[in-house]
Amino acid sequence: MKTEVEKMIAGEFYDPSDQELVYARRRARKLTREINETLDPKVRAELLKRLFEKTGKELNVEPCIRVDYGSNISVGEHFFANFDCVILDICKVEIGDNCMFAPGVHIYTATHPLDPVERNRGLEFGKPVSIGNNVWIGGRAIINPGVTLGDNVVVASGAVVTKSFGDNVVIGGNPAKIIKEIPGG
Amino acid sequence: MKTEVEKMIAGEFYDPSDQELVYARRRARKLTREINETLDPKVRAELLKRLFEKTGKELNVEPCIRVDYGSNISVGEHFFANFDCVILDICKVEIGDNCMFAPGVHIYTATHPLDPVERNRGLEFGKPVSIGNNVWIGGRAIINPGVTLGDNVVVASGAVVTKSFGDNVVIGGNPAKIIKEIPGG
Amino acid sequence: MKTEVEKMIAGEFYDPSDQELVYARRRARKLTREINETLDPKVRAELLKRLFEKTGKELNVEPCIRVDYGSNISVGEHFFANFDCVILDICKVEIGDNCMFAPGVHIYTATHPLDPVERNRGLEFGKPVSIGNNVWIGGRAIINPGVTLGDNVVVASGAVVTKSFGDNVVIGGNPAKIIKEIPGG
Repeated sequence: MKTEVEKMIAGEFYDPSDQELVYARRRARKLTREINETLDPKVRAELLKRLFEKTGKELNVEPCIRVDYGSNISVGEHFFANFDCVILDICKVEIGDNCMFAPGVHIYTATHPLDPVERNRGLEFGKPVSIGNNVWIGGRAIINPGVTLGDNVVVASGAVVTKSFGDNVVIGGNPAKIIKEIPGG
Repeated sequence: MKTEVEKMIAGEFYDPSDQELVYARRRARKLTREINETLDPKVRAELLKRLFEKTGKELNVEPCIRVDYGSNISVGEHFFANFDCVILDICKVEIGDNCMFAPGVHIYTATHPLDPVERNRGLEFGKPVSIGNNVWIGGRAIINPGVTLGDNVVVASGAVVTKSFGDNVVIGGNPAKIIKEIPGG
Repeated sequence: MKTEVEKMIAGEFYDPSDQELVYARRRARKLTREINETLDPKVRAELLKRLFEKTGKELNVEPCIRVDYGSNISVGEHFFANFDCVILDICKVEIGDNCMFAPGVHIYTATHPLDPVERNRGLEFGKPVSIGNNVWIGGRAIINPGVTLGDNVVVASGAVVTKSFGDNVVIGGNPAKIIKEIPGG
C-alpha cells in the first residue's frame, strides 16, 4: 500500500495532513528561511543544495524563495532565480541547464478538484512540471501544473502558461501563446 | 459627523493620515510580522484570530500575509491562504466557508480617483469585496474593489477579476471571463 | 574604455559579475533589508533617500521593496509605493512627482538576448524606464524595459506594459492597451 508521500509524487489524491508531509514542509520552511536570510552567496548555494533534490555545481536564488518541500525540485547547471520565486513542488519539478528566472516566477504542481464537495474533502493532487535547457522565464510568469517547456523557450513577463510548448519559441500573454519562433534555435 | 474610520468603511472619501488609522495600520503591521515570523501553526492561528474581524475555528495563512488593517476582514470556517497573500481592507472583505487561496492572491478594496488633481489631494475611497463559500482562488489572481463572487467559484491562476460573478463558474484571464460552468454545482 | 558600470547604464552588454557591481548590489541588499525591517516611517524615508539616486522631500515605500542597485532610481515629490515593489534598476528608472504604486508593482530595466547561445555567455543589457508626473500604477502591474509613460497615466491592476504610452490615458490588460482617455487631463 502506498504512503501519502508516494501517492503525492505519483499525482494521486493524497492527504497533506499526513505527519511525514507536515514534517517535511516544516523542514523546508526552516531551510528556506535560512536561505532567504543569509547575505553570503556561498552559504546560500550550499543550503540550496540541501533543499533541492539535485542541482548543478553553481546556482543562485535571490530571496525570498518559497517551496512546499524543495526535495522534488531538480535544477541543472547555472540555475538562477531572481527575487520572490515560488515553487509548489508536490510533484516533480525538473529544470534543465542554464535556466534563468526573472523576479516573481511561480511554478505550481499542486491542484484541486473543481467540484466543491470533492475539494472540501481536503485532498489534493498534482501534476509534474518539466522545463528544458536554456529557458528564460520572464518576470511574474506563472507555470501551471502539468506544463512541459522545451529547450531555449523564452517566457514573456506576466505570461500565464496553461499548456505545454516545444523548443525555440517565445511565449506570452494570459493564457500564453506563441509570440515568435527563435531563429537558429 | 463621521470619523475618518467611519467614512473609510462606508466607501466615502477619507483621509488616510488620520491618527486613528495610522495607529491601526501600525498595529496590523506589527501583528502580521509576528504571524509571518512564527513557525508554529497554532500560534499563527491565534494571532490571525486577533488580526481578523471574524474567523472560523480553524484557519491557516502561510507567510507573508500583508493587510492594511485586518480588522475589516472576516473569513469563514477552514480558511486557507497560501504564501504571500495581500488584502487591502479599507472596506469590508467577507470570505465564506471552505475558501482556499493559492499563493500570491491579492484582494483590493482601495481605489483612487482617475482625475489626477483629485487623486493628488491625498484622499482615497474603497469598495467592499465579498466572496462566497467553497471558493478556490488560483495563484496570483487579483480581485478588484467592489467584486462579489458567488459560491463554488474557481478563479484560474493569473486571473484579474474586474467584475462580479455568480455561483458555480470557473473564471480566468485578464480581465477574467467565464471559462466553464461547474457541473452539479 | 568604459567600465562595466558605465556599459550597464548605457544599455550595452555588460558583465554583472564585475566586482564593483557585486559590491553595489550587496550594499543595496543590506540597505533594503534595513528599510524593510524598520517600523518607523521616518527612519525608512531617510534610508530610502540613501538608497535612491534622488527623491522628493517626502516619500514612503512599504515593505518589502527589492532593487538591484537603488542608485539608478530617481523619484519625484510625494512618491508612494505599497507592498512588495520590485525595481530592477540596471538602467535609469525616472519617476515623476505625485506617483503612487499599488502593491506588487514590478519595473524591469534588465533584459537578455533571445538567442540562447548569446544569453548563456552571461551578459545582460538594459533599457531605461521613464514615468511621468501624477501616475498611478495599479496592483501587480508590470512595466517592461524601455517603457515610457506620460503624465497622469493610470495603469490598471494586473497590466503588463510592453510599450510606451502618452499622457492622460488609462491602460490595462496583457499586453496593456488603452482602456480610456482621462477627461480634462
